[in-house]
Amino acid sequence: MYRKRIKLEKLLNKVVDADAAAALIKDGMVVGMSGFTKAGEAKVVPRAMSKRAEKDPFKITLMTGASLGNSIDANLAEHGVLARRMPFQADPVLRKAINAGSVKFVDQHLSELAEHLSAGQITPVDVALIEIAGIDEDGGLVLSTSVGNSAAFLASAKHIILELNTAIPEGIRGFHDIYRPKLAPNREPIPVLASASQIGTPTVHVDVDKIDAIVVNHEIDSPASIFDPDAETGAIAGHLVDFFHNEVKHGRMTNSLFPLQAGIGSVANAVLQGFLNSPFENLTMYSEVIQDSAFYLLDSGKLTFASAAALSVTAEMLERFFTNLETYRGRILFRPQEISNNPEVIRRLGILAINTALEADIYGNINSTHVNGTHMMNGIGGSGDFARASRIAVFVTKSLAKDGKISSIVPMVPHVDHNEHDVDILVTELGLADLRGLAPRERPPVIIRNCMHPSYQDMAMDYFERSLKGNGQTPHILGEAFSWHIRLKETGSMLPK
Amino acid sequence: MYRKRIKLEKLLNKVVDADAAAALIKDGMVVGMSGFTKAGEAKVVPRAMSKRAEKDPFKITLMTGASLGNSIDANLAEHGVLARRMPFQADPVLRKAINAGSVKFVDQHLSELAEHLSAGQITPVDVALIEIAGIDEDGGLVLSTSVGNSAAFLASAKHIILELNTAIPEGIRGFHDIYRPKLAPNREPIPVLASASQIGTPTVHVDVDKIDAIVVNHEIDSPASIFDPDAETGAIAGHLVDFFHNEVKHGRMTNSLFPLQAGIGSVANAVLQGFLNSPFENLTMYSEVIQDSAFYLLDSGKLTFASAAALSVTAEMLERFFTNLETYRGRILFRPQEISNNPEVIRRLGILAINTALEADIYGNINSTHVNGTHMMNGIGGSGDFARASRIAVFVTKSLAKDGKISSIVPMVPHVDHNEHDVDILVTELGLADLRGLAPRERPPVIIRNCMHPSYQDMAMDYFERSLKGNGQTPHILGEAFSWHIRLKETGSMLPK
Repeated sequence: MYRKRIKLEKLLNKVVDADAAAALIKDGMVVGMSGFTKAGEAKVVPRAMSKRAEKDPFKITLMTGASLGNSIDANLAEHGVLARRMPFQADPVLRKAINAGSVKFVDQHLSELAEHLSAGQITPVDVALIEIAGIDEDGGLVLSTSVGNSAAFLASAKHIILELNTAIPEGIRGFHDIYRPKLAPNREPIPVLASASQIGTPTVHVDVDKIDAIVVNHEIDSPASIFDPDAETGAIAGHLVDFFHNEVKHGRMTNSLFPLQAGIGSVANAVLQGFLNSPFENLTMYSEVIQDSAFYLLDSGKLTFASAAALSVTAEMLERFFTNLETYRGRILFRPQEISNNPEVIRRLGILAINTALEADIYGNINSTHVNGTHMMNGIGGSGDFARASRIAVFVTKSLAKDGKISSIVPMVPHVDHNEHDVDILVTELGLADLRGLAPRERPPVIIRNCMHPSYQDMAMDYFERSLKGNGQTPHILGEAFSWHIRLKETGSMLPK
Repeated sequence: MYRKRIKLEKLLNKVVDADAAAALIKDGMVVGMSGFTKAGEAKVVPRAMSKRAEKDPFKITLMTGASLGNSIDANLAEHGVLARRMPFQADPVLRKAINAGSVKFVDQHLSELAEHLSAGQITPVDVALIEIAGIDEDGGLVLSTSVGNSAAFLASAKHIILELNTAIPEGIRGFHDIYRPKLAPNREPIPVLASASQIGTPTVHVDVDKIDAIVVNHEIDSPASIFDPDAETGAIAGHLVDFFHNEVKHGRMTNSLFPLQAGIGSVANAVLQGFLNSPFENLTMYSEVIQDSAFYLLDSGKLTFASAAALSVTAEMLERFFTNLETYRGRILFRPQEISNNPEVIRRLGILAINTALEADIYGNINSTHVNGTHMMNGIGGSGDFARASRIAVFVTKSLAKDGKISSIVPMVPHVDHNEHDVDILVTELGLADLRGLAPRERPPVIIRNCMHPSYQDMAMDYFERSLKGNGQTPHILGEAFSWHIRLKETGSMLPK
């Protein structure tokens, strides 16, 4: 059945099995693979690579769009195939290897990997390993459920291996908008003027002579692990809806707001779902992923258009998308992440950026990545691309973690991914802190009072007030700034015994 | 003599003395003033404001382009006129007031203030107080030695006070390129395609009915306090020239490099001066300020074009510019800082961004602003605008400060302005660390070996090696991470007794 999807006949003889394709990947190579948050990664070739490594150990640098599904990262890490990994991951097994130092993880802004490749700032790709849904008569590649960095890898690679996924409906053709910025110094503006701007082509055009192998798979993406909205995420959404409603009342935006971006994960997904019951109309989204919440908003009519680099949905939602493609055509576009996350477009469109914080400090600095300042969780992802260039940068987190043993608001974050210059609004289930126009010293009272759990408030105010005696633009007591984290490590709780 | 500079005759009757103009500024107002690194600030009206405050105390929020010359910030701070100041300053007296908490300082990316004003994210401007060199027949305002945020303030303000500076040659008309981005959601690309792109008008068009007063001054800008290049800045320049030369050899750029940005201050100025003896040709600059070094490069023919938001030069260089305007016409443009520092343009042009670090840590995080983590030096300025969106982000610093009592490379910076994601190259007089593509754990050995002064190297390697035992993506010992800073505060030196 796969033959009709390869419309350029001369490529039919490139079809091989996964083992044969995996054999093309040599020790020390840089592999650029499709895949963005469990959507559209190559599936059978990576497994064949792991299998091969059992007898014939080899290591590669693996670049992707973002994280991968189907435990591909776990599988490759367990088999020792990964020497170096960039720009994002979210796998527990790989995370462990990264934190143990056995896999080198280069945690990058998601817009930048393609940029660095184009500029020759990092080692070029030897092999692009890309999942597709079909090949046009002219050799144009129809991508699958993500675009991510696939177009950049295909352009950079010496060799191309394709995984043709016959489980993806052919009707996905037309949901991709492939556009790559020219190389400096001959660059032109990226012509995206709105979320719905279609600026590129539906397929990726490559030098077909670089295609060394095509492997057929018939396997859907593994589902996003999204938790249902709960009382706390509902409260966060409520505060944010109130805030935007107030911005509308003050004439700073219309009732359609500005294009929304919501980070990957349960909290951001739940927050967006909260917009279902909002007074806003004709919303648009210019984001990196389309999560379940975006489909609910599209279905309700609240959201008119969603632009992203990939899907990131549950099994039910993937099924719903695949069986109702025509309903969504013209209302969803998948773009390369160098476009979805491009600071040029983000600033131009006036994006409202909503991202999740691991923890925030009393001055509004955000740690998005490092547990207790040292151990990698997932990576910075696109949060830096969006927060820095956005119209309003919102960070959300529940006020407590680990049954209250961890406060998500701390005196000083031990790792800074977003600093006070880039954080406009901080929200927990308890409330919202509007930091716009506030000097650092004005922030702790607002953050502590509005966002922090009462069980930590006195301790935080005490720290801040004692810090003030030392003066400064951002008062701190350096010998004590990490005392909560040190106590957590020593006793299992940030609360004193 | 001033009358011939006011070509729109109906404005001639708006000329008043400084005291009368100062009286228009009321307690609690937001004043948007011209001025960017000692260039083009209003001069006589601020002094009249201070004088008035002696008898009639009042406080304002003062917004500017960046820092101010002629001790205006000191004078206003001493007279208690400043309640709030943004987005940058570099004055010792004001700095003291900020660190004591008596002036609230909102330290912002320089590209963002105009953006926040346009979007209504911060309180709008009551009075724009802008230095000009003349008024056209059609009411168009010819700005003086900086553009900065002047166009944004003029657009936002309810009332306008102008200072007409007759010490500025009238020939400065034509050196400004005034262009303002439209308001979202109707924005279009900013059409800058190269440093030399002229996209706007030579004057600022305002509603002339908003002009309440014109005050004449005849006073040149105070000189930039630039130290001459020394052996260490020469060595930093040498490492950087070698690095770029190597990039050229590897085919990543031509011998004209990409447009250069160099931060404000002595080190960046000296580094740029080092390019005089480089093998590069036909360089261009797309920066925030044009310092003396840029003039040397223009005069030598090494630099073909310099775009910036302001001048920032010594008295001799200002004289040279004023007396040789025709030599520089068509080779220098002053732009609004929302354009000079715009992430869209910075990424498009592929800027090579060179900024000064106060200190860096062994993982490549940069503190640009906070002495010992708490006390404000100047502000982040444009370093964040440029580093994040640049092609290559370089940070430079001398390896030691205070006769060796301070190491500019530390285990962990106690304030993060630029994190590891945004720092490609770190340079001290001792050498250069190329951090591109390195995972955090790979960075300390390179930074310590290449950039750190030998008197601190063993201590830093010892810290890093002991940190490794705790594992993690970015190993640290939180209880010890700031021990160097704490020792400095307690004993006056980071070195153990």
